[in-house]
Amino acid sequence: MINKLVKKIQQTQAPIVVGLDPMLSYVPEHILKKSYAEFGETLEGAADAVWQFNKEIIDHTYDLIPAVKPQIAMYEQFGIPGLAAFEKTVAYCQQKDLVVIGDVKRGDIGSTSAAYATGHLGKVQVGSKSYAPFHEDFITVNPYLGTDGISPFIEVCKQEKKGLFILVKTSNPSSGEFQDRLIDGRPLYEWVGEQVAAWGQEHMGDSYSYIGAVVGATYPEMGKVLRRLMPKSFLLVPGYGAQGGQGKDLVSYFNEDGLGAIVNSSRGIIAAYKQEKYQQFGPERFGEASRVAVEAMIADIAGALKR
Amino acid sequence: MINKLVKKIQQTQAPIVVGLDPMLSYVPEHILKKSYAEFGETLEGAADAVWQFNKEIIDHTYDLIPAVKPQIAMYEQFGIPGLAAFEKTVAYCQQKDLVVIGDVKRGDIGSTSAAYATGHLGKVQVGSKSYAPFHEDFITVNPYLGTDGISPFIEVCKQEKKGLFILVKTSNPSSGEFQDRLIDGRPLYEWVGEQVAAWGQEHMGDSYSYIGAVVGATYPEMGKVLRRLMPKSFLLVPGYGAQGGQGKDLVSYFNEDGLGAIVNSSRGIIAAYKQEKYQQFGPERFGEASRVAVEAMIADIAGALKR
Repeated sequence: MINKLVKKIQQTQAPIVVGLDPMLSYVPEHILKKSYAEFGETLEGAADAVWQFNKEIIDHTYDLIPAVKPQIAMYEQFGIPGLAAFEKTVAYCQQKDLVVIGDVKRGDIGSTSAAYATGHLGKVQVGSKSYAPFHEDFITVNPYLGTDGISPFIEVCKQEKKGLFILVKTSNPSSGEFQDRLIDGRPLYEWVGEQVAAWGQEHMGDSYSYIGAVVGATYPEMGKVLRRLMPKSFLLVPGYGAQGGQGKDLVSYFNEDGLGAIVNSSRGIIAAYKQEKYQQFGPERFGEASRVAVEAMIADIAGALKR
Repeated sequence: MINKLVKKIQQTQAPIVVGLDPMLSYVPEHILKKSYAEFGETLEGAADAVWQFNKEIIDHTYDLIPAVKPQIAMYEQFGIPGLAAFEKTVAYCQQKDLVVIGDVKRGDIGSTSAAYATGHLGKVQVGSKSYAPFHEDFITVNPYLGTDGISPFIEVCKQEKKGLFILVKTSNPSSGEFQDRLIDGRPLYEWVGEQVAAWGQEHMGDSYSYIGAVVGATYPEMGKVLRRLMPKSFLLVPGYGAQGGQGKDLVSYFNEDGLGAIVNSSRGIIAAYKQEKYQQFGPERFGEASRVAVEAMIADIAGALKR
């Protein structure tokens, strides 16, 4: 799957990922009305609205991009119907040949991490049958519990040729509270990054590892150091656009080969129609606004990489 | 909800929590057969078996205990039907007046943590209606992202009078890999513990805070230090029994008032019928074996606290 991600980035010339993190407030009125008319103002109605919204954005952008990153929390907030919309979104994106990164940030002790790995990346055995419940291609995981909380994910990734992005340095303002604290003179995120590089050796693709890292766009100096610490790991870089990052700040997240990072934008793409610069599209043509926003993001990042 | 937890611990004289972490291999053959006969060897069949198994354990133990802790990963591995069984288990335990700690270990950047908080502890707005999707009483959360990843959970807890257990020192063998690293001469888990105590001040119950900590039973010396660092925080203590902890090792997790900790056992209770010492019950009477195992655990811990 890391080989497919690399190949798709090369084909599209777009090292970006669209974050499918729908809030109900992003969904245009005409979609909400239709879903509520069919299912009522219920969790099913909300989940249907989110799904219809996603589908239109995917239909308008899938040919431009290598990957999407649905954030499961945005679906989980609508309970079971929301999670069914998550699964449907994953399946639909895979039909469109997109690589799907489930942003689930799971992580627990060994046997429990094994259950999460099974549910999201693997297959669960039921009697003589087996099923792949959420079947993402990659997921994000949290490293706080150390190696025996991560290994079960890596085991399933090896079986299924799937991958991980492990939280190293997150994009949020207080990420430094624990992640930046110095241990033997170096910040915790560097120690985690080194460990990601070591875990990555256990499951290599052709040129990059199946085991990558999450490194926020909002801390470019740290990104530079982490790029060098994990030369064979892809960096998933959230925080572009709405959270403040820009193409020119992100060059140091990439390797000399122009690869090694994939930059996520969520709100900036999926709620593009709400921005003043895209207002000519209006809520009815929100999918077209998302497409133009994707093109602008690709131009910004590809332009910065060329310079 | 922390006041209810304290009251129920005092009533039952049992500072314990039963971990509802079913693996299919724990479920007796006669239950599996019945569920597969009704739903086939499907995710629905597995989820039904898990639910029937839980129900019988709850029915045999609810009057002895204050709380249960379903581990969501064990349900999530069966996809949507599994998560529906999780929700049904939460609801059933609440009908039995048990306090429900959802062991979900979520945690993300601010807006995403807010969505998790809504889905698990709060209410989500859909048009003019609102719904409480998973409605646990407490959940576990991961602190790696710092304060702005935790605050949205605390906000919802304040509105709903619900609570958190934040990972501080976990029970697994490699928990020390990052958690024990020294920062200014003190291990990371102490810094996290201090922060939990500070967060706890924001949402106090009568005698304890709504914001507690997860501290593994497998590291009693560290438990002792953390007990003092967070005097008003309840400690949720996993790792008793199957993972190696014993009553006599756990006294230091409690305050002088005999409160302040709640010890979890999962496999040791729910799969008790598989142990040699409870084999007289057999798979058919697994619920009775669980009841006797609960009584033994209470005697072990209450006995140790009296000495």
